[in-house]
Amino acid sequence: MGSTRNAFERSLEELQQEILRMGSLVEQAIYNSVHSLATQNVDLANQVIEGDRLVDQLELEIEDKCLKLIATQQPMAVDLRKIGTGYKIITDLERMGDHAVDIARVTRRLANERLIKPLVDIPRMAAITQEMVKEGLDAYVKMDVELARKLCSRDDEVDHIYSQIFRELLTYMMEDPRTITQATYLLFVGRYIERIADHATNLAERVVYLVTGERLDLND
Amino acid sequence: MGSTRNAFERSLEELQQEILRMGSLVEQAIYNSVHSLATQNVDLANQVIEGDRLVDQLELEIEDKCLKLIATQQPMAVDLRKIGTGYKIITDLERMGDHAVDIARVTRRLANERLIKPLVDIPRMAAITQEMVKEGLDAYVKMDVELARKLCSRDDEVDHIYSQIFRELLTYMMEDPRTITQATYLLFVGRYIERIADHATNLAERVVYLVTGERLDLND
Repeated sequence: MGSTRNAFERSLEELQQEILRMGSLVEQAIYNSVHSLATQNVDLANQVIEGDRLVDQLELEIEDKCLKLIATQQPMAVDLRKIGTGYKIITDLERMGDHAVDIARVTRRLANERLIKPLVDIPRMAAITQEMVKEGLDAYVKMDVELARKLCSRDDEVDHIYSQIFRELLTYMMEDPRTITQATYLLFVGRYIERIADHATNLAERVVYLVTGERLDLND
Repeated sequence: MGSTRNAFERSLEELQQEILRMGSLVEQAIYNSVHSLATQNVDLANQVIEGDRLVDQLELEIEDKCLKLIATQQPMAVDLRKIGTGYKIITDLERMGDHAVDIARVTRRLANERLIKPLVDIPRMAAITQEMVKEGLDAYVKMDVELARKLCSRDDEVDHIYSQIFRELLTYMMEDPRTITQATYLLFVGRYIERIADHATNLAERVVYLVTGERLDLND
């Protein structure tokens, strides 16, 4: 029995490692997509778009592992809910990866235009968001409720920067209608990053729910 | 054994009924949110926003049921994957509900402004999307691959209307900068509906994967 238990713990450990691997690919994609936009680097944007296939593939592999682990080991209570949470978390990660692709597509569109302004707030917003993803996964693996809660509060920072960006870009559009198309694409980029942060917050809220059974509103 | 099997089938049947119930609440929220925007009905918008709590609650209840069903009954092969797919589908439904809330919030924001145009394409886009959600859930319950495939192709219709809306609103903004703020909010509404359609497509793609093991790209 003890050895079965150890075998189960090993499988659970492996599962978490794969989730972390998927997470680090997504973090990288978020960074690269925004960096490709700020530096108008289409090759990097293309890497992000192609790299998303691997992320999608990992989601399916990890899904299968979660289900088989639950069905074959019939884990109880917290183990069961931890695997179930992992099964949900990878969907948030997959969607974050898709938003990185959305951003990379904007890089392609704006590749041959002069940017109306050097991008500062967007990369700052992305950096915080990327950190939120990393911390959310740490919180999951370590079942660290405090870290998870801290994370949820950081979402407000991101929303704040986003509304700044929103107002600033509207001003550009009003002052010079020629900027409208590009400013609109940049608005969407801000929105994509905000959504990635929402997914990171969902992830953290799932961890709080997993550990405490306490329900925070899913905000995405 | 046969009776256990029947007990399992009953639980699976119940589970699917609850997923359908959650789905019909979300379909209604999509319709109401867009209708509240087109008719500038703030009360209806508030109903959508408050109603989302029940949708979130249902997601958690169904999640628990899925996990317990898997862990206690150890379903094999297709039963296992059908429950796992249900577990994923409810996340898509929950996110669709959140986008309905996003739209209802725009209704609140634009409540006291004259709309720059009567909304026609946005409700049309929403009607198709609402149908996609319904058909996606039917496809899941009936394991109907053909219906699921048809659905995926309808996503292009939605994307097409969205890009029409996008171009039209940009024109409004360029012709009259006073429309920029409202047009930007309407652009976001178009984007929210497009994302709901993406979630419906994810749902259909999961059904195809469930029945055939064939992987279509998740596009959201």
